[in-house]
Amino acid sequence: MTHSPNDGHGQANQTGKVYLVGGGPGAEDLITVRGFNLLQKADVVVADRIGATSYFENLPSTVEVIEVPGVGDRDHVAQKDINQLLIDLARDGKQVVRLKVGDPNIFGGGGEEAFACESAGVDFEVVPGITSAVAAPAAAGIPLTHRGIANGFTVVTGDEEIAAVGGDTDHTLVILMGLDRLRETTFTLAAGLRGADCPVAIIESGFAANQKIVVGTLANIARVAQDAGIKSPAVIVVGDVVRLSPHYLAELQAQFFKPERS
Amino acid sequence: MTHSPNDGHGQANQTGKVYLVGGGPGAEDLITVRGFNLLQKADVVVADRIGATSYFENLPSTVEVIEVPGVGDRDHVAQKDINQLLIDLARDGKQVVRLKVGDPNIFGGGGEEAFACESAGVDFEVVPGITSAVAAPAAAGIPLTHRGIANGFTVVTGDEEIAAVGGDTDHTLVILMGLDRLRETTFTLAAGLRGADCPVAIIESGFAANQKIVVGTLANIARVAQDAGIKSPAVIVVGDVVRLSPHYLAELQAQFFKPERS
Repeated sequence: MTHSPNDGHGQANQTGKVYLVGGGPGAEDLITVRGFNLLQKADVVVADRIGATSYFENLPSTVEVIEVPGVGDRDHVAQKDINQLLIDLARDGKQVVRLKVGDPNIFGGGGEEAFACESAGVDFEVVPGITSAVAAPAAAGIPLTHRGIANGFTVVTGDEEIAAVGGDTDHTLVILMGLDRLRETTFTLAAGLRGADCPVAIIESGFAANQKIVVGTLANIARVAQDAGIKSPAVIVVGDVVRLSPHYLAELQAQFFKPERS
Repeated sequence: MTHSPNDGHGQANQTGKVYLVGGGPGAEDLITVRGFNLLQKADVVVADRIGATSYFENLPSTVEVIEVPGVGDRDHVAQKDINQLLIDLARDGKQVVRLKVGDPNIFGGGGEEAFACESAGVDFEVVPGITSAVAAPAAAGIPLTHRGIANGFTVVTGDEEIAAVGGDTDHTLVILMGLDRLRETTFTLAAGLRGADCPVAIIESGFAANQKIVVGTLANIARVAQDAGIKSPAVIVVGDVVRLSPHYLAELQAQFFKPERS
């Protein structure tokens, strides 16, 4: 991108542009090089509050940062207001980076903001990011696919569609925003093809300093997560690939060598 | 990471380390900042040939680059030989970046290389990358999820498990390495819940200079892709979200305004 500073007056539609940038899972250096460079050269950054703060601590002082708390926040900004803000800024000739957690197109509302820009005749561009659906399992040492163990994966949120997910334990299932319904979800899955013994991992804040990982099975993970005080946002991974995690092996060993109760 | 150059002799296991780095979809600046920095400081880069060459054109001259052509190549290197190479280099005290296309843990064999390092007692770390399953749809303006249109997505390769994928047109299906079996795959899906009218997009080389996009339905996409000369590697996206692509809208308009045949 070539970017020339402008005075914010006139020539609006010729220079203003919205970049819908995926910030990745929260670690400062897991954004893409393209996203990082756009942040440095932006006039305004419109940022999700959750997780992404570290990105703009070291930005040039010329970059204005506007935080727009998400749905989970008490003072959250409605999607239509965010859309309008992006459009107004771009029409004012600004280079706008809309910084989103993870990837804009995976449960990120990126499609809605892109559609809003498109409809308003505002130039925009999507810069993908690393979704927590991919990053969190990696943080726990779990590959989503693995030769002979899993040939595919499905990503859903923890709502009613869990029952419709196909596949046996050799198809990896990643559930985002599913902690609140964990007990119902694990029951549904255990009653299906996967069975109660199917391994599960839950990763809170993958790749962040306060990362927390618990492992278990569909039968016991709800209790294990509760005992460990796992909190949202967390990523739930279900399937045989979980056995590849060193955390899973360590848990097995701990069970194996546990002293008998007297 | 702190990295001190070493002479390649002695102190092997104390300093050698393997970084399994996702290079992203092929555009030079869609690697993560962490991955980029590791490349600059590496002793050796062991790189997939496909797509990733642009990353190491501007590396410091001190960085040795070893290309290991993948299974598709005539002179491809077997996975066990790659594993051994990584282990040998790390044991020789090197900082090794294993640069892979996309994400190491999604059809990338990253799990196998991680397991090989683990088994050999070699220190390793996974740095996620942007998988083409996410990037290619983004390049075509297709969000994988979108409020009211799709609440989840499944990623598979184009083999026999397609039939087991659950969900209706509101569950996005991404097929990697599926071009060779496109006719069978679309037939299987059209005969299922999705029906022949379900929209499909195929993206060849998403985010690269030679990017090519075709759109259609399960009924006609095999012919459309053939007529357009689409080649592997390509990503196939199936589901209602494809309607959000400007390419899909343009195609509809072209059909609508097509002059009647005389």
